[in-house]
Amino acid sequence: MENFKKITSKDNSLIKLVCALQSSRKARLEHNLFVLEGVRICDDACSCEIRFDKLIISETAFSKYESAVKSFEKNSNECYLLPDSLFKKISDTTSPQGIIALASMPKMNNTINKNGRYIALENLADPSNLGAISRTAEALGVSGIILSSDSCDPYSPKSIRASMGTLFRMPLIIFDDFSKAISESGLKSFACVVDKNAKSITEVSFENGSVVIIGNEANGLTEKTKQTANEQITIKMSGKAESLNAATAAAISIWEMMK
Amino acid sequence: MENFKKITSKDNSLIKLVCALQSSRKARLEHNLFVLEGVRICDDACSCEIRFDKLIISETAFSKYESAVKSFEKNSNECYLLPDSLFKKISDTTSPQGIIALASMPKMNNTINKNGRYIALENLADPSNLGAISRTAEALGVSGIILSSDSCDPYSPKSIRASMGTLFRMPLIIFDDFSKAISESGLKSFACVVDKNAKSITEVSFENGSVVIIGNEANGLTEKTKQTANEQITIKMSGKAESLNAATAAAISIWEMMK
Repeated sequence: MENFKKITSKDNSLIKLVCALQSSRKARLEHNLFVLEGVRICDDACSCEIRFDKLIISETAFSKYESAVKSFEKNSNECYLLPDSLFKKISDTTSPQGIIALASMPKMNNTINKNGRYIALENLADPSNLGAISRTAEALGVSGIILSSDSCDPYSPKSIRASMGTLFRMPLIIFDDFSKAISESGLKSFACVVDKNAKSITEVSFENGSVVIIGNEANGLTEKTKQTANEQITIKMSGKAESLNAATAAAISIWEMMK
Repeated sequence: MENFKKITSKDNSLIKLVCALQSSRKARLEHNLFVLEGVRICDDACSCEIRFDKLIISETAFSKYESAVKSFEKNSNECYLLPDSLFKKISDTTSPQGIIALASMPKMNNTINKNGRYIALENLADPSNLGAISRTAEALGVSGIILSSDSCDPYSPKSIRASMGTLFRMPLIIFDDFSKAISESGLKSFACVVDKNAKSITEVSFENGSVVIIGNEANGLTEKTKQTANEQITIKMSGKAESLNAATAAAISIWEMMK
């Protein structure tokens, strides 16, 4: 316990920092830090060799998760111990496990493998959808996720949680000029649209060097992206619902591209 | 406004009833009522001819959603008006629209169409997954959802919200003795398992009179259900993730069964 500094005041600057990082993308960018919460997620990050800048543990967690805390301690630059009541204030969950780590955001590698198979997401708004898509993408062997820079933050607590740690391992490529970058990537691009006249995804023979593009939950893809894609494809629907959830459309697209 | 009774006290019995119905399945069963919240969901319920026992509107919503409120009023037995501050206490959302209706749970029809194509869910725990699966099932034209009675409540606020109203329209069949009921249903049953030696779902030719069975998020299917199913099938995974999310596994299974 000698490595752990005690914090007891809610006015401590670290408490304020964690609260800001939990709720604000701006704060995450400004400090180049994001929050990892819970044993499972911290474990996943350790196995991906993500070094912790700070480790913050509640008193209960310190004894309850003794062996996990010891291994996280070895992976951390600084360690802090908080009373449970104070830990509650910095947690993003209603029943906190009492374990939070802060880490620098991994450096992005914007290189696309021209023989890869990618899923691209334009202006995706919901971090839980992003996390779910990352989980599906990893399970089915996608080469990476291409994200427009106006999409939600892959380092928000919700994205990380929904991804079950897969966002630490999945190559993530973020583009400001999304449609231009995709058309210049060398990949054959398939814009997934809700349009009965578009080609059915079942009629496409996907080859290496492909990318399927999924749009925003409410508005779909932008006109620019639809127009610059090599093909427009659709998931044929026979039922009454207006459209599939973005994570579901991505799951079916990834499945068809990878199987 | 003459049809609307004003409620101003948080100790009013209706306020307590709505809070109980929002949070407790037991209360929903006891009163045979569930909560519909928001313009979109109430609209969907109206078009499915679900009569409202009670309509509860906040003062802001009364003027903001005037025409919607008028149409909901015609579909309601009793109408109530609440100050915004009191409405916040009965809402399940952080930014309430100010519209809540209470309705009786529709009568279940436990008849299975022997030529139908069904998705069955055993001990599904997460109401958001159930809602998401219902949305996918409707979009892709599934005949109905078969649910084990130990699954989460299809009438919880989270299920209804995630289903985007599709749970009102989707035939829902609930069985206590799930595996026995499925094996006696006359449908050919496919248990979806995580097992590299099971038959790939891509090798199955689904015909009319089929059901794919998906298990609990953490534990998968019970041994009994695996053993009594006609076939065990699997979604082959090439990546590192342990398994697909239940809603994703259901989406891919439904897609393969229906396409």
